[in-house]
Amino acid sequence: MNKSIKVSVPATVSNVGPGFDIMGFALNVPVEEMILTIKQKPEIKIKKITGDKNKLPFDINKNTATVALKKMLDKLNTNIGIELEINKKLNSGSGLGSSAASAVASVFALNEILNKPFSKNELLEFALQGEAVASGSIHADNVAPCLFGGFILIRDYNPIDLIKIKSPKNLFCSVLHPQFEIKTSDARKLIKKNYTLKELLTQTSNAAGLVTALLKSDYELIKRSLNDVVAEPARAKLIPGFYEIKNRALENGALGCSISGSGPSIFAFSKSLDEAINIGNEMKKVSSRYTKKNIIYVSSINNDGPQVI
Amino acid sequence: MNKSIKVSVPATVSNVGPGFDIMGFALNVPVEEMILTIKQKPEIKIKKITGDKNKLPFDINKNTATVALKKMLDKLNTNIGIELEINKKLNSGSGLGSSAASAVASVFALNEILNKPFSKNELLEFALQGEAVASGSIHADNVAPCLFGGFILIRDYNPIDLIKIKSPKNLFCSVLHPQFEIKTSDARKLIKKNYTLKELLTQTSNAAGLVTALLKSDYELIKRSLNDVVAEPARAKLIPGFYEIKNRALENGALGCSISGSGPSIFAFSKSLDEAINIGNEMKKVSSRYTKKNIIYVSSINNDGPQVI
Repeated sequence: MNKSIKVSVPATVSNVGPGFDIMGFALNVPVEEMILTIKQKPEIKIKKITGDKNKLPFDINKNTATVALKKMLDKLNTNIGIELEINKKLNSGSGLGSSAASAVASVFALNEILNKPFSKNELLEFALQGEAVASGSIHADNVAPCLFGGFILIRDYNPIDLIKIKSPKNLFCSVLHPQFEIKTSDARKLIKKNYTLKELLTQTSNAAGLVTALLKSDYELIKRSLNDVVAEPARAKLIPGFYEIKNRALENGALGCSISGSGPSIFAFSKSLDEAINIGNEMKKVSSRYTKKNIIYVSSINNDGPQVI
Repeated sequence: MNKSIKVSVPATVSNVGPGFDIMGFALNVPVEEMILTIKQKPEIKIKKITGDKNKLPFDINKNTATVALKKMLDKLNTNIGIELEINKKLNSGSGLGSSAASAVASVFALNEILNKPFSKNELLEFALQGEAVASGSIHADNVAPCLFGGFILIRDYNPIDLIKIKSPKNLFCSVLHPQFEIKTSDARKLIKKNYTLKELLTQTSNAAGLVTALLKSDYELIKRSLNDVVAEPARAKLIPGFYEIKNRALENGALGCSISGSGPSIFAFSKSLDEAINIGNEMKKVSSRYTKKNIIYVSSINNDGPQVI
């Protein structure tokens, strides 16, 4: 009999204003789902991918889910047969950590089905290596919040030093996803290579302000700290109507608003579900003037990471 | 009869590693003392300054204490006679917030004697303007921790946005003061005007790491986060033997070590008073090879600010 497990992993918002390249957080909605089945035949296979409009590779050396799995099997030094069904509820190129979600889902699922031979810190390494095939280099700002939940600060990579910050209780997030794709590599090219001392100090004090705000549940300080002088000013032009959308969110009470990952998704914080729903709808209204199709997600912050469902 | 008050205000360490220009904290030792006396004759006068080796001005338009007082009296729109005795236990040019301490002491003392017409936030404005005559521009990274105690993050100046972070309970500080003077203006000239993206990200993630560490009382994270890519590498050469002193502190268990303000004082954190005493002595041993006279202070963190004594 084949043993099977179904898991759900969270979408993630990376960058988080002044936390460019060093912060990310996880959402309860949307999630990506995956079914992992142990097979007799010792091979890794992707049986089915739904919801991706045929964009993602079935080649197990190119899909982040199977690359991560292979790293894990190498470490286990074993030859298990594995079959995956991937339900891509997160579109690739949305800026919501789609490739990270696949990498986390597969290693989390296999670890659960094998009775947890690895710690989450070990799973992180496999998932990072999996996600690197999509982004071209090791980045933890989606993978880490996807796996651990909450807000994650990546203090260093050598060695990796992650700090988890649990979300304030009443923090909600509206995400607008205008339906077009931005390539991470294109968005990265827009980031300036050099900064003035003043820019450095602004980014530093706001990032320190943001983590303080989260740890103290100081909602107004979240709002004041959500200033980014690195990514947002460089990438705003990739998203038609960005500043109008942001202003609409702020006018409706959002505790800050910025680009999720390399976009085009835009996130905004608020203090209640009702506000978050209203802000999402208002953002969509503005974005609809520029982009035909827009999806809104409204979510609390996921503090736990992946789940078996 | 003349009414008189004696106050004690804390020395402060500004910059704090990755918190260059945006953070400072207050010490319980050393302190500066001041006696303020209300007089009949409506004039401001500095009667006596001790402990400063005749370096500080008696001119009330040049001493930070009296400039701050004048700003406060302007706001009160009154003509009180005031006489000050300043006991400079903090040397100017030591990097321990001496000029800020004088500015805070005088406005705090007058506010107390007048039954607190002003809030601490209002006193901050007067003290900042007083301290500016010494430093040439408005800087809050000594004045704010001196007035409020604890660690202070300065998120912004327009308008000023200070965030107080109470010190972890068991945090101690060793301060080595090699007895020579560094002019703040000379030290500032050494700071680079431009930074790479990598430098910006390193400073940002470490500053965020440091405030997280303080808020979570995570002593090991304090140590890992106390990396500064802006001021320390530029200014180390001003302090003979700096890296040897720092290494000696770290070898003896210090939770990080860096330059206080623009130097020459050097601070090191530790988890117990015994460790702090030992680390101070070890730092002094190394520094004595380079600088003839060295003073050591060992202190807990002052969480309250000035006191009436």
